Amino acid sequence: MYNIGVDIGGTNLAIGLVNESLEIVQRASVPFPKAGGGPETARQIWEKTNELLDKAGGTLTDLESVGVVVPGSIDATGSIVINAYNLGFHDEPLKERIVAHFRDIPVFLANDANGAALAELYRGAFVGCNTAALLTLGTGVGGGLIIGGRMFNGGMNNGVEIGHALLASGGKHCTCGNNGCIEAYCSATALKQEGIKAMQDNPDSMLYKRTGGKAERMNAKVVIDCAKEGDESAVKVFDEYVDYLGSAVASLINILDCECVAIGGGVSAAGEFLFASLRQNVHKKSFFENHGRVVPAVMGNDAGIIGAAMLKRNRE
Amino acid sequence: MYNIGVDIGGTNLAIGLVNESLEIVQRASVPFPKAGGGPETARQIWEKTNELLDKAGGTLTDLESVGVVVPGSIDATGSIVINAYNLGFHDEPLKERIVAHFRDIPVFLANDANGAALAELYRGAFVGCNTAALLTLGTGVGGGLIIGGRMFNGGMNNGVEIGHALLASGGKHCTCGNNGCIEAYCSATALKQEGIKAMQDNPDSMLYKRTGGKAERMNAKVVIDCAKEGDESAVKVFDEYVDYLGSAVASLINILDCECVAIGGGVSAAGEFLFASLRQNVHKKSFFENHGRVVPAVMGNDAGIIGAAMLKRNRE
Repeated sequence: MYNIGVDIGGTNLAIGLVNESLEIVQRASVPFPKAGGGPETARQIWEKTNELLDKAGGTLTDLESVGVVVPGSIDATGSIVINAYNLGFHDEPLKERIVAHFRDIPVFLANDANGAALAELYRGAFVGCNTAALLTLGTGVGGGLIIGGRMFNGGMNNGVEIGHALLASGGKHCTCGNNGCIEAYCSATALKQEGIKAMQDNPDSMLYKRTGGKAERMNAKVVIDCAKEGDESAVKVFDEYVDYLGSAVASLINILDCECVAIGGGVSAAGEFLFASLRQNVHKKSFFENHGRVVPAVMGNDAGIIGAAMLKRNRE
Repeated sequence: MYNIGVDIGGTNLAIGLVNESLEIVQRASVPFPKAGGGPETARQIWEKTNELLDKAGGTLTDLESVGVVVPGSIDATGSIVINAYNLGFHDEPLKERIVAHFRDIPVFLANDANGAALAELYRGAFVGCNTAALLTLGTGVGGGLIIGGRMFNGGMNNGVEIGHALLASGGKHCTCGNNGCIEAYCSATALKQEGIKAMQDNPDSMLYKRTGGKAERMNAKVVIDCAKEGDESAVKVFDEYVDYLGSAVASLINILDCECVAIGGGVSAAGEFLFASLRQNVHKKSFFENHGRVVPAVMGNDAGIIGAAMLKRNRE
């Protein structure tokens, strides 16, 4: 039997046919049909599913479920995309539209960060965990929780918004309208912004040289690369960033006593350079001597497809 | 059938005989036998249990379980008090000592903040909740979580230390050794300390008059009382306190999407004066439009006994 996993993003709709060993045996990616909205999205999922099944020598009777993850909030019944700004979906009855094509095959809908945590649980960093947290450091900070060996979608099914827990009450402005959120300090965007400030403050820095002093050429990777090479300005920015990230991770550990906290997204590509300092920082701030591991997320770009394909299993 | 609930504190050992309607039908309180350590504590529990049963016209055969809560950390097997500083218990095999008296009657051990959350679940603010958080604002900040309709003792059974999640990374020093913990901003102690500072800064304030400028006469209640009467210095301290507390509550809501956050401890006696501003503050910072309730904890001094008596039911 197969499960279909669909990862809808603002640019592409990625779809994969996942076998019982949780491998993606067939996959496709098409431009997200923004103009067509929900109906066209559902039609594409239907069409691509049939193509992938065909390529794999299967039919619809080999399909256990269709799982879909979106960058947005889902209603408590798991049927409607309340808001997915990048997709232009608002109160979009996406499940119903997909079910219209697939009829008796169960369809599941989830937030993409939750899906990514689920992918880590079934095939990645969280295998064997009962309680774990995923932080994805990109444009924003996404978060997903595993509690009791299952995807945790919030006590009221609103989802989890770890990125908007407060790390510095009253501090830096966050895109959500509040001040001091984890996202405002720990996103790749935040690292970039601090990099720009440091570069402007110090024209002798490597940060300045690498970007020619141009803000638009700065990004998280430039800061990390310069810090690795020992550039003083970059090291300072990076150390402060790690200190904030350490506080965010330690907060999750002190509240949930997680077995594992995994870090994904662009910034995590910094590898041991990041994780060695981060672990030290978290250990200092953890209330528990014997606390959970801090590791890189491993599912990368496949997290969405695998997580979506596992939504049915998560319910069982 | 009855359950015995025991709430051990640094001063008193309170014990109650709890019936199936979760009422304390008989109770006693004795000085905590500090000198006698674990063995004497177990003996007292045994002796008082027999007295209470006797008074209620029951016998040991009417006893379903003995539950004990302590202000400290319990090992993952629920048998040993790892550290309870106020009791002088360190690696104390308390369960074993109690079992030696009670033999076949099941004995359960838990942290007192977890027990308090359980009491709210069975008889208080959390009745009917699946996910809820309790913050107890006293000398420190205690915390307990209900997840999936049960007491959550941390993913690795280390417990939950909500008071040591970070609210202001790098901020005020906390007794735990870190900087910026919730406890450092939201405990009654923190409110008192800010009251002392404000009083010293402004000898014309009501804060100063009420205390005669003496730090030892300041406490959380004085700050709250003066704020209620509109004293400018006190209002400023109180508003800042509510802002931090609002951030702590909003963080829990954004991470866990709790149905209910209950606030207990001395500070919560401020009543609607506190809760009206707190709810407004939390609503502003909550990521979810439709978020959980923020209410006073209702179990008060009985929380320990009731929670302890419910430890067996929590496992079923």
